[in-house]
Amino acid sequence: METSIRTIQVGMGPLGCLMTPVFGNKASIDVVAAVDVNPDIVGKSLGDLTTADSDVTVSDLDTALAQSPDVAVVTTVSEVDRLWPQIQPLVAAGVNVVSTCEELSYPWTTQPDLSREINAVAREAGVSVLGTGINPGYLMDFLPTVATAVVNHVDRVLIERIQDATTRRLPFCQKIGAGLTPQAFQELVTSGKIRHVGLTESMHLLAAKLGWSLDRTEDVVEPVIADIPVHGEGWTVKSGQAAGVNQTGRGYVDGEEIITLVFRAAVGQPNPRDTVTLSGDPDYTVNVPGGTHGDTATCAIIANAIPAIQAAPAGLRTMADMPPISCCL
Amino acid sequence: METSIRTIQVGMGPLGCLMTPVFGNKASIDVVAAVDVNPDIVGKSLGDLTTADSDVTVSDLDTALAQSPDVAVVTTVSEVDRLWPQIQPLVAAGVNVVSTCEELSYPWTTQPDLSREINAVAREAGVSVLGTGINPGYLMDFLPTVATAVVNHVDRVLIERIQDATTRRLPFCQKIGAGLTPQAFQELVTSGKIRHVGLTESMHLLAAKLGWSLDRTEDVVEPVIADIPVHGEGWTVKSGQAAGVNQTGRGYVDGEEIITLVFRAAVGQPNPRDTVTLSGDPDYTVNVPGGTHGDTATCAIIANAIPAIQAAPAGLRTMADMPPISCCL
Repeated sequence: METSIRTIQVGMGPLGCLMTPVFGNKASIDVVAAVDVNPDIVGKSLGDLTTADSDVTVSDLDTALAQSPDVAVVTTVSEVDRLWPQIQPLVAAGVNVVSTCEELSYPWTTQPDLSREINAVAREAGVSVLGTGINPGYLMDFLPTVATAVVNHVDRVLIERIQDATTRRLPFCQKIGAGLTPQAFQELVTSGKIRHVGLTESMHLLAAKLGWSLDRTEDVVEPVIADIPVHGEGWTVKSGQAAGVNQTGRGYVDGEEIITLVFRAAVGQPNPRDTVTLSGDPDYTVNVPGGTHGDTATCAIIANAIPAIQAAPAGLRTMADMPPISCCL
Repeated sequence: METSIRTIQVGMGPLGCLMTPVFGNKASIDVVAAVDVNPDIVGKSLGDLTTADSDVTVSDLDTALAQSPDVAVVTTVSEVDRLWPQIQPLVAAGVNVVSTCEELSYPWTTQPDLSREINAVAREAGVSVLGTGINPGYLMDFLPTVATAVVNHVDRVLIERIQDATTRRLPFCQKIGAGLTPQAFQELVTSGKIRHVGLTESMHLLAAKLGWSLDRTEDVVEPVIADIPVHGEGWTVKSGQAAGVNQTGRGYVDGEEIITLVFRAAVGQPNPRDTVTLSGDPDYTVNVPGGTHGDTATCAIIANAIPAIQAAPAGLRTMADMPPISCCL
């Protein structure tokens, strides 16, 4: 049997803890250390913190690096300028990095200087760095670019991620603002508490891969307003209240909207799905009926990225410029 | 503007002639020569042979090589052992190759020695060689591996390509055996005249990318029998006659069928589509409603592969081990 990949987890928050058992089910992945800055969990075992069977204990970074890891999975922050000081010691130590940091999925357009620095340090160390996940990282950027391979010309890209929260429990419904008045919803938008990070990065990846030069992008968060009451498990959304969130990314060339990303998570949504619609020569549609479960798919793609990033050419990678990730054993 | 890619076409049969105008619409591609062995077309211009506006004339290979091409598009044969003597002089001369040769899409399992030879010669020459197309090359191999990225575990892969020929004209219906008696259909199967090449290669690519070791594969061609009469433009298929072809690829591990590819082209088929269904943790479905037009998409993916193969690492490449192709300008 091939040697499994010595992996460390950096960031044992909710997402990191969801990933540990996924990694534990992969013969190709061996979690050899875990890192967090929260003193409440340092010293605890991954077996205590997660559903995985693991006696690895949460430590500091130096202790983790002493385990000679091949790959680090970093689930800490959304901003690449906050991420870089966290991963720079890993990269310098020759550890490949996969991160859920949304801005890392395509930082070249919004943060070119920092991207060049990450790329240079990674190449110097002979390792690769990738930001991925389900969104950004797959549904609204990678999958659409893959769909464009079979058409002659693309005029316009529309991507819709429609999630129906009706069967979800209260915490998720609260997270998406369901049950709020429009005013209360708007206050959470203004304070940045309801906002999905990554639409801008997805648009820039798409544009770069298609050779498009965007004049500008927009990222607008609005409530979906319920027009009839919706009842779920332990909650009710009344008519006129927010049923959830609708976030729209728009990319323009010469004043024309040629990229539209619709991210909607709300109760009472019919026909949940992920859909890529290319308008061009010819038109082309790729659909995931029922949609893609965010947490499950994010854990899966990060796990599956571990062998891929170890094999990828050194440097700051994106999903568009390395061999495609597939399910690993 | 970036310099366009100096491209030659080798093989000016029906598919090659369909591609020329597609290449002509791409600013990134410049067709600088064309090659064929048919004395009836040598010396004719691509403008005469195709709908493209081009005064490039069909010549022999040496004349084409004198144009210092970057990439050759080769649309000649389906068998990689027949292809290699044709492309070896191109590779040795430092020309990257993209071919519709079905067996080239994944020759590593069925022809490992030849694959190693192609890989070695290509690496020595610093160029890359790729077999692609819509099927094999995309729908039944590449797209499914891409879909597996977002699941934790795959138990079984089912891929269905269902084409409805009802609106197609007589030559296509004849090609798929529509209107034949079951006996006459079987005779064409036995003589190899009704057969799609590539299901085996698609299964081997899938298996290799998923880390599966197949015991054996099957590739079975059968008629679809019409249960009611079907009428089209200039033809009628009676009840009991062949409505078209159903070809099934099956891949087994430990006696269990874990890959199933269904390729069906017949008149009277409801719900034409290309569908990838993964059974696993979780199940996952990707669907192309209406399906993908074979000729159009093949021309598109070959055109879009030209910049991709020029940028790819040297060697014998497959769709699974190079950065994904997307629509080029």
